[in-house]
Amino acid sequence: VRISELGEFGLIGRISRFLGSNPADVVVGIGDDVAVMRVSGPEYLVATCDIQVENVHFLRSSISPYQLGKKIVAINVSDIAAVGGDPTWGLVSLALPSDIEVDFVDALYRGMQEQIQGAGACIVGGNMSQIRAEVVIDLFLLGRVLPERMLLRSGAREGDAILVTGVLGDSRAGLELVLNPHLQASEKTRSNLVQRHLTPVPRLHEGQKLARTGKVTAMVDVSDGLMGDMGHICRASHVGAEIYAADLPVSSQCRETAGLAGRDPYEWALFGGEDYELLFTADPAFVHEIQNAVTGETGTSIRVIGRVVGESQGIVARLPDGREMSHSKGSAAWDHFAGR
Amino acid sequence: VRISELGEFGLIGRISRFLGSNPADVVVGIGDDVAVMRVSGPEYLVATCDIQVENVHFLRSSISPYQLGKKIVAINVSDIAAVGGDPTWGLVSLALPSDIEVDFVDALYRGMQEQIQGAGACIVGGNMSQIRAEVVIDLFLLGRVLPERMLLRSGAREGDAILVTGVLGDSRAGLELVLNPHLQASEKTRSNLVQRHLTPVPRLHEGQKLARTGKVTAMVDVSDGLMGDMGHICRASHVGAEIYAADLPVSSQCRETAGLAGRDPYEWALFGGEDYELLFTADPAFVHEIQNAVTGETGTSIRVIGRVVGESQGIVARLPDGREMSHSKGSAAWDHFAGR
Repeated sequence: VRISELGEFGLIGRISRFLGSNPADVVVGIGDDVAVMRVSGPEYLVATCDIQVENVHFLRSSISPYQLGKKIVAINVSDIAAVGGDPTWGLVSLALPSDIEVDFVDALYRGMQEQIQGAGACIVGGNMSQIRAEVVIDLFLLGRVLPERMLLRSGAREGDAILVTGVLGDSRAGLELVLNPHLQASEKTRSNLVQRHLTPVPRLHEGQKLARTGKVTAMVDVSDGLMGDMGHICRASHVGAEIYAADLPVSSQCRETAGLAGRDPYEWALFGGEDYELLFTADPAFVHEIQNAVTGETGTSIRVIGRVVGESQGIVARLPDGREMSHSKGSAAWDHFAGR
Repeated sequence: VRISELGEFGLIGRISRFLGSNPADVVVGIGDDVAVMRVSGPEYLVATCDIQVENVHFLRSSISPYQLGKKIVAINVSDIAAVGGDPTWGLVSLALPSDIEVDFVDALYRGMQEQIQGAGACIVGGNMSQIRAEVVIDLFLLGRVLPERMLLRSGAREGDAILVTGVLGDSRAGLELVLNPHLQASEKTRSNLVQRHLTPVPRLHEGQKLARTGKVTAMVDVSDGLMGDMGHICRASHVGAEIYAADLPVSSQCRETAGLAGRDPYEWALFGGEDYELLFTADPAFVHEIQNAVTGETGTSIRVIGRVVGESQGIVARLPDGREMSHSKGSAAWDHFAGR
């Protein structure tokens, strides 16, 4: 059996079973976006990593090394933000072809340094190696979180509201403009959306404020696409989800770009990925309190986009035109469904 | 300027200057084999990582995935052993071509799991990605060390004895047998040396016992080759070193293999690398006490192989035939010197 037949999550599931149960000092082990460990002192230790591979995650022709440095830190900070934590220290593994210019490495570190300092953390170590052809960057980010504030995927309850920070689909629209530069988007739209894709802003303060409200029941960041990440909450919490697509926060620039590309902006908002917004659940009675606490202090909007339902109902998105999209069908099914 | 002109240590030096000084909670930052951070509680947090790239660090045809899993954990455990620390948790980043068999991943994890459990630690998370052609494995290993027991590169003093655990050169001899399978070594020699190369045993208990003696002034593990790693101690401690090559612990199997390959076993012991022995310094008055404490409990021999001298004297190895090898000349200079 080849790993391509199992897929990433199939393989992780296999490995998890293989590694057995967690020791007592491991609060969250393999299979989650972060690992959480009990250490002495009032806070838990949090650790996450993300490997970025040239020609899989990025094209050297489309992203500057400075932007790449910022992005790899941002996506790791986002994982720590999603548990309500606080990043502290990073280690960087680099595998570089020998013909890479020193300027590339300088700019990469300038981007990483700027983004990690902005998150209140710093780079403390790493490792460097040659590789034949393609750049590989792996960032390992440590952080801390107070046990009583920590938010996991597993706390969502039937009847909870489903909420999301910011807007969805901009990153996917930016990717479209990177891949199809001939699309006639306005200069302002192009520059904003491409920036949203290449240098996402992790919702660190929002995550911490959400954790501090004490009202959030489960949280993840939107990296795999809203429906995919909703699936992480649903599986861990043993619930289903109903998403009201008409309520998804989609920008006019995303709509404009989707129109130019002949695509549906809801598809991008539901399945696009790399939004790095926070997706969370809470008792509907506390929605206003949560919105006030977070939007008041950060300016980041928070929108109710659905509700938690029973596990047997699965994960369904209701589109404005009455169609239903199921989680398991994924983005690949979109065009098929759209064609009916 | 291309990175190949600067080399790994040139590039790390450049990055260190670039990142500026460490915040107060960072005890050891970038440029060392491990990062050490102050956390609440009596122990420091230790973190290290090592990226292994196919066709740079290993050939898939020469090492089984099980051995590869063991090795990547071993080399990270060795880094933590070298500060006298204790490994706790590991995160694994994998980049795999899509045609890799699931059996490869299973065996890799079986090897990692076995080795990390043997070190008293466990795998708590990670990340998985596709890559076009070559397998990349990056392990991040966390650990802890008591501040009063921690050993760094920087404490060596002029007049100290230089000591090493175990034997040197076996790993390099094993590599020779992997690369040149036609060499007529005995089956026992081949199997032992190849194993020493493919599945090194980190000196974890030895490192902890050495730290507990309170008599060791500086320590590193031998990963880059004895002379290279001696250089790390000398630069950090602002001292020089004189190595008595005749006293180097070289096995008869290593001598046998060097003979068959037409090479000098001292070259392999001085420059071979991947020995994963511990190289350390101590006041000569405490050598016997140290040897008794460690060898008595672990069975691992400890040999005096030189002495710490003034910084201006550099790093020199005195060979039995009277020749002198300098650190800066490196292994590349060996054949040149040997030819005179």
